[in-house]
Amino acid sequence: MRKQLTKGNEAVVKAAVLAGCRAYYGYPITPASEIAEAAALYVPQAGGVFVQAESEVAAANMLYGAAAAGVRSMSASSGPGISLMQEGFSYIAGAELPCVVADIMRAGPGLGNIAPEQGDYNQIVKGGGHGNYHTLVLAPDSVQEMADLTTLAFDLADRYRNPVVVLTDGYIGQMMEPVEFAAPRAVPPPPEWAVTGTAATRPNLICSIYLEPDLMERHVRKLEAKYRRAEREEARAELYRTGDAEIVLVGYGIMGRVLKAVVEQARARGLAVGLLRPITLYPFPAAQLRELGRRAKAFAVVEMSTGQLVDDVRLALEGRVPVEFFSRVGGNVPSAEEVLAFVEQKFALLRQPEEVLIHG
Amino acid sequence: MRKQLTKGNEAVVKAAVLAGCRAYYGYPITPASEIAEAAALYVPQAGGVFVQAESEVAAANMLYGAAAAGVRSMSASSGPGISLMQEGFSYIAGAELPCVVADIMRAGPGLGNIAPEQGDYNQIVKGGGHGNYHTLVLAPDSVQEMADLTTLAFDLADRYRNPVVVLTDGYIGQMMEPVEFAAPRAVPPPPEWAVTGTAATRPNLICSIYLEPDLMERHVRKLEAKYRRAEREEARAELYRTGDAEIVLVGYGIMGRVLKAVVEQARARGLAVGLLRPITLYPFPAAQLRELGRRAKAFAVVEMSTGQLVDDVRLALEGRVPVEFFSRVGGNVPSAEEVLAFVEQKFALLRQPEEVLIHG
Amino acid sequence: MRKQLTKGNEAVVKAAVLAGCRAYYGYPITPASEIAEAAALYVPQAGGVFVQAESEVAAANMLYGAAAAGVRSMSASSGPGISLMQEGFSYIAGAELPCVVADIMRAGPGLGNIAPEQGDYNQIVKGGGHGNYHTLVLAPDSVQEMADLTTLAFDLADRYRNPVVVLTDGYIGQMMEPVEFAAPRAVPPPPEWAVTGTAATRPNLICSIYLEPDLMERHVRKLEAKYRRAEREEARAELYRTGDAEIVLVGYGIMGRVLKAVVEQARARGLAVGLLRPITLYPFPAAQLRELGRRAKAFAVVEMSTGQLVDDVRLALEGRVPVEFFSRVGGNVPSAEEVLAFVEQKFALLRQPEEVLIHG
Amino acid sequence: MRKQLTKGNEAVVKAAVLAGCRAYYGYPITPASEIAEAAALYVPQAGGVFVQAESEVAAANMLYGAAAAGVRSMSASSGPGISLMQEGFSYIAGAELPCVVADIMRAGPGLGNIAPEQGDYNQIVKGGGHGNYHTLVLAPDSVQEMADLTTLAFDLADRYRNPVVVLTDGYIGQMMEPVEFAAPRAVPPPPEWAVTGTAATRPNLICSIYLEPDLMERHVRKLEAKYRRAEREEARAELYRTGDAEIVLVGYGIMGRVLKAVVEQARARGLAVGLLRPITLYPFPAAQLRELGRRAKAFAVVEMSTGQLVDDVRLALEGRVPVEFFSRVGGNVPSAEEVLAFVEQKFALLRQPEEVLIHG
Repeated sequence: MRKQLTKGNEAVVKAAVLAGCRAYYGYPITPASEIAEAAALYVPQAGGVFVQAESEVAAANMLYGAAAAGVRSMSASSGPGISLMQEGFSYIAGAELPCVVADIMRAGPGLGNIAPEQGDYNQIVKGGGHGNYHTLVLAPDSVQEMADLTTLAFDLADRYRNPVVVLTDGYIGQMMEPVEFAAPRAVPPPPEWAVTGTAATRPNLICSIYLEPDLMERHVRKLEAKYRRAEREEARAELYRTGDAEIVLVGYGIMGRVLKAVVEQARARGLAVGLLRPITLYPFPAAQLRELGRRAKAFAVVEMSTGQLVDDVRLALEGRVPVEFFSRVGGNVPSAEEVLAFVEQKFALLRQPEEVLIHG
Repeated sequence: MRKQLTKGNEAVVKAAVLAGCRAYYGYPITPASEIAEAAALYVPQAGGVFVQAESEVAAANMLYGAAAAGVRSMSASSGPGISLMQEGFSYIAGAELPCVVADIMRAGPGLGNIAPEQGDYNQIVKGGGHGNYHTLVLAPDSVQEMADLTTLAFDLADRYRNPVVVLTDGYIGQMMEPVEFAAPRAVPPPPEWAVTGTAATRPNLICSIYLEPDLMERHVRKLEAKYRRAEREEARAELYRTGDAEIVLVGYGIMGRVLKAVVEQARARGLAVGLLRPITLYPFPAAQLRELGRRAKAFAVVEMSTGQLVDDVRLALEGRVPVEFFSRVGGNVPSAEEVLAFVEQKFALLRQPEEVLIHG
Repeated sequence: MRKQLTKGNEAVVKAAVLAGCRAYYGYPITPASEIAEAAALYVPQAGGVFVQAESEVAAANMLYGAAAAGVRSMSASSGPGISLMQEGFSYIAGAELPCVVADIMRAGPGLGNIAPEQGDYNQIVKGGGHGNYHTLVLAPDSVQEMADLTTLAFDLADRYRNPVVVLTDGYIGQMMEPVEFAAPRAVPPPPEWAVTGTAATRPNLICSIYLEPDLMERHVRKLEAKYRRAEREEARAELYRTGDAEIVLVGYGIMGRVLKAVVEQARARGLAVGLLRPITLYPFPAAQLRELGRRAKAFAVVEMSTGQLVDDVRLALEGRVPVEFFSRVGGNVPSAEEVLAFVEQKFALLRQPEEVLIHG
Repeated sequence: MRKQLTKGNEAVVKAAVLAGCRAYYGYPITPASEIAEAAALYVPQAGGVFVQAESEVAAANMLYGAAAAGVRSMSASSGPGISLMQEGFSYIAGAELPCVVADIMRAGPGLGNIAPEQGDYNQIVKGGGHGNYHTLVLAPDSVQEMADLTTLAFDLADRYRNPVVVLTDGYIGQMMEPVEFAAPRAVPPPPEWAVTGTAATRPNLICSIYLEPDLMERHVRKLEAKYRRAEREEARAELYRTGDAEIVLVGYGIMGRVLKAVVEQARARGLAVGLLRPITLYPFPAAQLRELGRRAKAFAVVEMSTGQLVDDVRLALEGRVPVEFFSRVGGNVPSAEEVLAFVEQKFALLRQPEEVLIHG
């Protein structure tokens, strides 16, 4: 298939429709609005349903309903809207239903502004809703990945019967790049667990209520086992020039691209720098990080947040290797130059064997 | 003052009113409903306002408004309702306003059931809303602390101009114990930053919007500095027989009480067990944990969750000491007996020097 | 086309889809729920959109939006839901947009019950929303008319760019009869005034705001002229054995059918009774009534209401002929027998020339 | 008591508080916003509750709840907001609860504008909600009456256990005049039918549901009897120079004042003109009109509407006297001059005995 010059937000929708998505519920918000706009155009063209809901609370519950009916369904928003969907995510995960949500992060907290940031990491990766659940989280760093990871998101959602979030920043959402889209999939018939309005599916009970603690515990353990399986099987990361790296940079989304430039510039100056770019944020590629930690002398997390991803890096490395941290926030994207300066300073410390590294 | 036999949920409200709380907005939900009920009774008696809002989304925004007017304000809910308030928390934190919210946790995800659990840890402690913010989090383990920590919550909220959450489980919320309440405080005049409907306060702008990235970054850094200060100054924990402890148990809320019984029973069997009970969950008492980590051979986190607090313990200890984990969920509270059995098994491993401990 | 045995509520939807309706927004309520159910089935099959809105307020505003886009759109409800749509009706009429709404009346006020009544007459015919507007109102008395008048409703809505209400009672909505449906219409292209999301239609301004009183007055007069035209051209009524009638019964919906039986039974007893059944309630068939008033000695309005239609009959007749009134309410439908007894009593009075008739 | 220079909207609130109103629920809208503003100030000062609700739908339901608790409660809005409250009014009337609502009319339909109009007559007087109910309707023509009729409204609401609407236009709401307020009333204890949260009042069932048609019919007939009683006992009108009037002008609210000037100017020109100003719109002063109809040669209704009040005048007069109609709409208030010209033209016709008057 020929490549199409496509905006990141539009790529999400095209890939979704090609993957069989036939229901979209959402409320527009900058910098995610083109997703709603494109969904309003493409989903009905494919015979599906687009509803601009009254609010993100409504959208999340419509998503819940459509997912229960076995329709491949999605929504999208940015920080403030995503916050309003947290209750819904917990219900959808508790009811074990597949769906896909894109969060195109903007600066926060509160209204903040519409420039790119990565401050929604915790609410998405740690679970901003109540109870013991996770959303699987995919973090594209290009328009091509906006498409590819959306396709994957629908597959993972079905495989795990769980919400999957495509999490990226306004930068990736707004950029245009050539994209090769996957071939269209046939829309699968509703799964056997779905409630499709027929008498035959009436016994299918879709809910998240388990009044009896033992039954509830069994349900939570079942969910937990599913998440453990995802942790074993689904963690993905891109490794870039990590073979001989002494300092491994870690960043996702737009940061992954900036950090590749940093790797190149650092290596041009003789510094053995590599990059691990998590593609899945949950499950987190902890094993790959730990593997790199066997030879690397330090890690440097670069985030557009005051420090959220960095905790997962630290949890994965268990204190075995120092983890440095650099960030810009508020819509400012760290430049390759300022990250390089930060890296060079850290290398200077590494070169002073008597120097005690200050961690985190 | 004479002690009054009081239910946990009621203690929150009485302490709030005595601390000068004059506005309550919320929507009832089991097992937090007595808070709304008591607030409906006591807050108006004190000349304040009680509104049963249309939804938790509404309650969170009313809280935002009352806080902006400089009124000591609170709300309460349980998991599903708290999820609906996440957008509001982010706005309130972003606008730097004080308020207090009680989350009386029930089992989840989704509807779950109304029995006690601790599955809201991440959404409260890590920030279930968007952007870089924190809520301060206090975790009472008794009805007395339901009162005392509510008082403290109002003070911290004012000191840090930030939402403070009193986070406990349905067990603590529903139990009755004798409580000694603090003396009533005079209601302070509205702070100078408040918008009170007068011409003089019209220039006070309460918002969380900063369109310019550099101004947004400055604002986020200001918030961050505030959180760093709280981390330095406000972390609280109860240490119980930790002086010579080889295994340090860690648990909060109702688990703290169970674990004290475990400590006693273990020591009766000759095992050197102690307890660290975090009183603040954010800021997390990491320094105290690390201090205990210098002599303890292992930590065991016991949670009514599939593992949320345990990550903060691991982050604090940075891999220096093994961290074991035991949990019950779904409304089941781990009994002292089953925790003791778990502890004894871990001790047996500790006694086998050649045995490699499996972490996490 | 072969006749299909069809329920009244279902006939509305089938006729709507055949008439080109491609958008349905509503919230189910007994005894109108089958309309939503059928719309959920048939409208998407025809390539249209069905949304179960969050509330009737939402449904009315979605209808407003779809109508503005030039899509033939409808909603349906019963009393309580219709009350919630009154603001929307006023906006839609003010913006001069076509749409169709079915009100399948139940007993009221308030929750009332789900049995048939005719107590919504005033809110529909007199305009339950604010400002000077009317909805055109059609009153089917059979399943065939549920279909035919729905078809007509879409035509009138377009002709007058105004909401048209199909107003009937739960009795008609719930009964099954053979229906011959009209041939399917091609869906017309969006009218030139519609806003269809294209650059070309951007200058089309759909609103109901006229800040300047003179412009507002001109707009209201324009609406008024339209209503005067409808009054001249669209009033419809069925006359049944009125040629020689001394007493003319007046009733709509299920009452029309009962009154036909009364006419037959009365005539079997030698009484010259006829029936005028208004098919349009607004515009009201005042001229036809007045025409009958030239020879009739009395009118008797029979309503399932404490007296709403009767005022329009009195207004039309201007006191020239006595207007009697009989009613049952609360879900009780007047039987032919009790109406006949009422009629016979009135005839007895007519036969006593010296008797003064007590009006109203 | 000394007179206070007071704005119409403010007079409503002061009179309400003096009459014992202790709960206000509403959402601001021009030209009624000062009512909410004043209520926010005065109701809490009197120990009552003010809530700015999320929407007018919410406000109406809060009013329902407060009224059920036996608290003298009120709300206010203008056209669009009033439309949203129609469902609530039907419920409150159905449950036989007292409350007071002010509608300060603006131009419509739809958004219209914020200038004065009288287009909400039908929705208020005929019942814009579902089912057979009425609101009692009082129509002040001065700031003094804004106060006096609000006091009366609370009394009538209690006497009839029914919503009472104070209906006027933005002109009266916005004007300032000296007002003498009634002495403050003691707040009455909750009536014995109220549900006050005590065990003793638990058996009091407040609802509007009657599943059994016979019970529903009995309930509707009970309401009807109540309305018949109000029609007998509560109709009020001001008569102004009607003793010898050949033409009787009819108008309410601001029109009443304009028409008094018209009467004076007409009489200065030797025309025998008088005025009937309805003070109650429901119950309508039909008997007084009919009484005047015995000697008057014509009536002229002047309304800021395309013709709503005029129907009630015609219904009352039953065609015995011609009823002329003059109106301005959209925010334009008929001037005394243009009404006078209209009256003179009608008189000229009256003077031509052979001329057939065209009615309506």
